[in-house]
Amino acid sequence: MRIDLNADLGEGYGPWPMGDDEALLDVLSSANIACGFHAGDPLIMERTVRAALARGVDIGAHVGFPDRQGFGRRVMQVERDELAAMVVYQLGALAGIARAQGARVTHMSFHGALGNMAAADAELAAPLVAAVARFDPDLTILTSPSRAIEDAAAAHGLRIAKTFLADRACDRDGLLVPRRLPGAVIHDEALVLERVRRLLAEGVVVTHEGERLALSPDSILVHGDTPGAVALARAVRGAVAEAGGKVVPLSRRNAAPA
Amino acid sequence: MRIDLNADLGEGYGPWPMGDDEALLDVLSSANIACGFHAGDPLIMERTVRAALARGVDIGAHVGFPDRQGFGRRVMQVERDELAAMVVYQLGALAGIARAQGARVTHMSFHGALGNMAAADAELAAPLVAAVARFDPDLTILTSPSRAIEDAAAAHGLRIAKTFLADRACDRDGLLVPRRLPGAVIHDEALVLERVRRLLAEGVVVTHEGERLALSPDSILVHGDTPGAVALARAVRGAVAEAGGKVVPLSRRNAAPA
Amino acid sequence: MRIDLNADLGEGYGPWPMGDDEALLDVLSSANIACGFHAGDPLIMERTVRAALARGVDIGAHVGFPDRQGFGRRVMQVERDELAAMVVYQLGALAGIARAQGARVTHMSFHGALGNMAAADAELAAPLVAAVARFDPDLTILTSPSRAIEDAAAAHGLRIAKTFLADRACDRDGLLVPRRLPGAVIHDEALVLERVRRLLAEGVVVTHEGERLALSPDSILVHGDTPGAVALARAVRGAVAEAGGKVVPLSRRNAAPA
Amino acid sequence: MRIDLNADLGEGYGPWPMGDDEALLDVLSSANIACGFHAGDPLIMERTVRAALARGVDIGAHVGFPDRQGFGRRVMQVERDELAAMVVYQLGALAGIARAQGARVTHMSFHGALGNMAAADAELAAPLVAAVARFDPDLTILTSPSRAIEDAAAAHGLRIAKTFLADRACDRDGLLVPRRLPGAVIHDEALVLERVRRLLAEGVVVTHEGERLALSPDSILVHGDTPGAVALARAVRGAVAEAGGKVVPLSRRNAAPA
Repeated sequence: MRIDLNADLGEGYGPWPMGDDEALLDVLSSANIACGFHAGDPLIMERTVRAALARGVDIGAHVGFPDRQGFGRRVMQVERDELAAMVVYQLGALAGIARAQGARVTHMSFHGALGNMAAADAELAAPLVAAVARFDPDLTILTSPSRAIEDAAAAHGLRIAKTFLADRACDRDGLLVPRRLPGAVIHDEALVLERVRRLLAEGVVVTHEGERLALSPDSILVHGDTPGAVALARAVRGAVAEAGGKVVPLSRRNAAPA
Repeated sequence: MRIDLNADLGEGYGPWPMGDDEALLDVLSSANIACGFHAGDPLIMERTVRAALARGVDIGAHVGFPDRQGFGRRVMQVERDELAAMVVYQLGALAGIARAQGARVTHMSFHGALGNMAAADAELAAPLVAAVARFDPDLTILTSPSRAIEDAAAAHGLRIAKTFLADRACDRDGLLVPRRLPGAVIHDEALVLERVRRLLAEGVVVTHEGERLALSPDSILVHGDTPGAVALARAVRGAVAEAGGKVVPLSRRNAAPA
Repeated sequence: MRIDLNADLGEGYGPWPMGDDEALLDVLSSANIACGFHAGDPLIMERTVRAALARGVDIGAHVGFPDRQGFGRRVMQVERDELAAMVVYQLGALAGIARAQGARVTHMSFHGALGNMAAADAELAAPLVAAVARFDPDLTILTSPSRAIEDAAAAHGLRIAKTFLADRACDRDGLLVPRRLPGAVIHDEALVLERVRRLLAEGVVVTHEGERLALSPDSILVHGDTPGAVALARAVRGAVAEAGGKVVPLSRRNAAPA
Repeated sequence: MRIDLNADLGEGYGPWPMGDDEALLDVLSSANIACGFHAGDPLIMERTVRAALARGVDIGAHVGFPDRQGFGRRVMQVERDELAAMVVYQLGALAGIARAQGARVTHMSFHGALGNMAAADAELAAPLVAAVARFDPDLTILTSPSRAIEDAAAAHGLRIAKTFLADRACDRDGLLVPRRLPGAVIHDEALVLERVRRLLAEGVVVTHEGERLALSPDSILVHGDTPGAVALARAVRGAVAEAGGKVVPLSRRNAAPA
């Protein structure tokens, strides 16, 4: 079993740091890097790309709404063609930062409210995924399970990598339970680890409704901005090893699928 | 004689337009497109790129300080490594917008206060031009005459295209007279045209000090945000034709130098 | 009949103007001034306040979402306590600008998407109007007809001034027809004037559904950012005079009701 | 001896906190609250004001350049009338937040690069201090020693409170040594405390040049955003008590001078 381990990084802004990116990068195989809209700025992006490259960690673009104050977590009703242009702008900005270091962006994911909206709305997912494909048909879209995004990716010939959010409850369709509902975020680390172990051993997660749902993710997402984030990421990596698996970046996993 | 005709475009923001880009694009051969820092936004960039491509006009990145309110005309003391990252970010963003339309950015220029500072300060020009070269060694830097930028470009193997600012006074070193000084901006259109005609006929400009200075620019810059901008641009283009010249984009001019 | 004539002013940003505020101010009796969130900046606010004061025009705060790129017209899902703080921040900023000129802000209104959302949702209107009242219980809320805002104002002892949007269709409840629907914005100036004349003569407007709806507004809003805005504003003022009415600022109208 | 103890607070932004404001507020007598330009946002301002009021801590406006990414520490060349409008805007915004809680802003200070520039340049200090006076002639300006600001305040009848920056070196004129020079920031807490004790006991500070300079500050500034900030603030407060002094807010100190 080869699985990727990813997290959202580069989420500081100007004088404000967020999370311990350097320590996390020692554990991950893929980094989703904020592109300056909901978080991040050119210098932070440059440093995060550099730190990822130094460790052989995949570079992905984490694309969000233009709303730093709300951290991209607030719904915004942006016209679809404008939103598609915003997606391409962010992809290009990070690709430029990577290119100036001789590297490539190999995957992308939608952040926060934009991610939730696109995952649940095929009419929004379609133009956004089309924009990704126009920018670079070799990009992999990293996403929690979503029919809307998977269908759009298939329509545009884009690879999908499904990620398992270890600390977020999902419903029987595999969609994330909205953050504001009770139980949506799992704070108990033991429980988070148990979910990872069950997934690795049985290929199953227990949904918010208490049912067993079969999942076969390509990647596991750990969060970077909580107090015990690094320790938890290490524990998840340890669980993969215990289960006889191997942590492999998305790009190499795709290149040589198990 | 083959010469390029360029202007700064895409300088609106959100609900606020600036200039009549469509009409100007019918006259120009190269467009310097704002990249969302001092002006422009993803949707405006996308539309400006589309309109330029439809007319065979070269696409350039116009890179500035992150200061919309001051339109990038205010000096900001930004650390050089951070500024270099900002330059790459903007180059990448526009390159992404172009790439999603199957096109390439072929030149870049520095806007406003950033342009003035880089043109006058070799220690600033060096890291910025190095960043451009790291991003794409095939980019041409479009600049008014500047030893600092020319030297830096030579050091990094980048092509330079020198532009003549038809409505801006220059001093005996060819540097632009700062905008706040009297006579720095030439508002009289007849005088602007006369300067263009003399340049085309004699290869000479009369400096702010009243001396003749030999110039052999690759391009002429016209401004897009003044009331008579389009008419003036047409008149400049007419003057090139009258002088037996031909307006040719930078990219083709470089490809087949006269 | 004493009626106020108001418009949204100060809607430029940095280098980008919007509308001919000086000319409009010669016609209006109240100005709703953008407070730097959806439009406006400190210098524009200062100049607009100064120009209004010079003409005895009432100063109002036009409060919107923090979204310049979308001009405050995009729905944003902001938590209510944060939105209330944003309202107070904007009110305070304009009040400060006015105070530094020895003047007072006498009314406020909600702009764009924020205005539409508050007008249609009592649970949103309540905390926002409460915030206005905490800031200054002497402020008048200028609003198109809205049960939600009227009820909230009554609950907090705030005066309401109802405004008639001469160029916007309303439904049988008096609510504005959303801008994206056909017929929502009335571009034909003759029709706009006819609506004003009927209102003044009969106290009635014809709704989007074609029914007659009785209205007794305290004010008429004209738009400032369209090509014929100033001429139309003058025509509306002329129509008030023809109907035997008098244009009076909200503050004086409230002080001495007819 | 009655002396004020102040710190810069409310310096988070959106999702990014900075410092432990609640703990610091238990030690301080005055808070300088960021106003949304270099740091802070409406919700953070509201919460910081609330927390200060609950402890009887003075509320001051900490006014800076519009540059969150640079935290207001980068020089920006803004026209003076525009800068004056920015100062008033920020003062008004915080005054509005305070007013909505039944409270008043009683002092203000200039932050970062704006503070350094105003302290060193009488031609900049004059219009900014004049703007403060136009906004509210009862405000006290809290400043490190500066002839430029003191003269401007005297000219406009504003009270000055001089603050001692316990962890920042000053030169023989009492001006802060620029942050980029070696020794400008004193990181050794024992040394910081020693400076405070000497000041309290002898009314003297040892300058960057090693000379003794007589100072009689009204206030001591402690920093809030360093790891040991709260412990150091408590130690400074302890040193005041040991020296037989009393920590008193600026507003009460001014009301009843010793």
